[in-house]
Amino acid sequence: MDRLHLSQHISRQFNAEIEDVRKRALAMGGLVEEQIAAAVTILESRDAGTLAQIGERERRINQSEVALDEQCTFILARRQPTASDLRLVLTVMKMLGDLERIGDEAKRIARIGERLVAEEGDLDVMALLAELGAATRDMLRGALDAFVRLDEALAHDVLRRDVQVDRIYRSVQDALVARMQEYPDAIPAQLDRLWCARSFERIGDRCKNLCEFVLYLVRGKDVRHTGLAKAGAAY
Amino acid sequence: MDRLHLSQHISRQFNAEIEDVRKRALAMGGLVEEQIAAAVTILESRDAGTLAQIGERERRINQSEVALDEQCTFILARRQPTASDLRLVLTVMKMLGDLERIGDEAKRIARIGERLVAEEGDLDVMALLAELGAATRDMLRGALDAFVRLDEALAHDVLRRDVQVDRIYRSVQDALVARMQEYPDAIPAQLDRLWCARSFERIGDRCKNLCEFVLYLVRGKDVRHTGLAKAGAAY
Repeated sequence: MDRLHLSQHISRQFNAEIEDVRKRALAMGGLVEEQIAAAVTILESRDAGTLAQIGERERRINQSEVALDEQCTFILARRQPTASDLRLVLTVMKMLGDLERIGDEAKRIARIGERLVAEEGDLDVMALLAELGAATRDMLRGALDAFVRLDEALAHDVLRRDVQVDRIYRSVQDALVARMQEYPDAIPAQLDRLWCARSFERIGDRCKNLCEFVLYLVRGKDVRHTGLAKAGAAY
Repeated sequence: MDRLHLSQHISRQFNAEIEDVRKRALAMGGLVEEQIAAAVTILESRDAGTLAQIGERERRINQSEVALDEQCTFILARRQPTASDLRLVLTVMKMLGDLERIGDEAKRIARIGERLVAEEGDLDVMALLAELGAATRDMLRGALDAFVRLDEALAHDVLRRDVQVDRIYRSVQDALVARMQEYPDAIPAQLDRLWCARSFERIGDRCKNLCEFVLYLVRGKDVRHTGLAKAGAAY
């Protein structure tokens, strides 16, 4: 299997372009990570003051997505990369969509968080939600680290962490259903909290996608739907 | 802007490869459409007999995704396409992810539908859910037609239909919240119905993504985040 050797490019200019794509993808990932952190802050502090920053950050994430996609298309058309360079460009193009949608989920959570500021808080559930948010943020950071370091073991580690995210998600759901049954009047607010939990859970799923792309990048083999990505199994 | 001219390839073999990618993408889209239809059938008929077929179809969808992605990567590496051919290959690669996940949502709905077979039905809500499912299936069929015909107007039309899907989704949600407040014991079953509605709503969103990819393919311009795709506006 051909592993990555980024030092063998013929042209220095091409090297610089490939490196630039990598850096920009990471920068976009950093913005998305900030977006998750901001959503968690709104849920925890019940202060919606940062919502304008979230809107501004979303615009930057969207611009990054379109610009990076164009840059990758340009490289494919002009440089016609092969082997590991081709895989890097294609991996970034695939990651873009998931990163952008993780940002969207975080924005959705932040907006619901703003609605919840006025609601009477339920400290246990809000603590679980914050824990869930922190766990998905760790997954994203791990996925980005695995991408930058081409670290298979880390990618597998992040894939396994999704089990933890799903566990917290189910705890939140159970707690919310119990509250709904006890206080039917507050069902709409509890559903809002459930949407937040669901969005975090989706972020975890998308971080898994990112890790599968990293494994494809490092190993030159598509591991989706093979069970390998899930199990981190023998190979 | 360079529009598509698929008849200008130098090599007949290359022509055949590009055409094959297109056909296989459509065939995969057809399987996904069947998956939505099967999910709606389970909800409507409350007969979970087709669940095994859904599992089998999911395997075929997943295989198609991996095989087509490999085929596209091969074409990029060996044929080094440019202009409209490059766009077609990249568009298909982007569509694959959304198609596969639409299939996943449909499978999720079918599984919940199986759980709901034993529950006492609420005919109004189930009729709304079936209507929602049919509307998203129409969106998918429209997106695939727009792809095969390179039909901008149809792509815009499908984008606009998402408003209708969102409207039905909100009706389902309102009806379910009212039922939950009236019968707190049945909250878990109502939440199941809400997850189905939410999954259909997500399918609608993914069909919008497909249409945006079609617009990129036809026009050679990324319309995401520009407002153009949403409005179907002047250009």
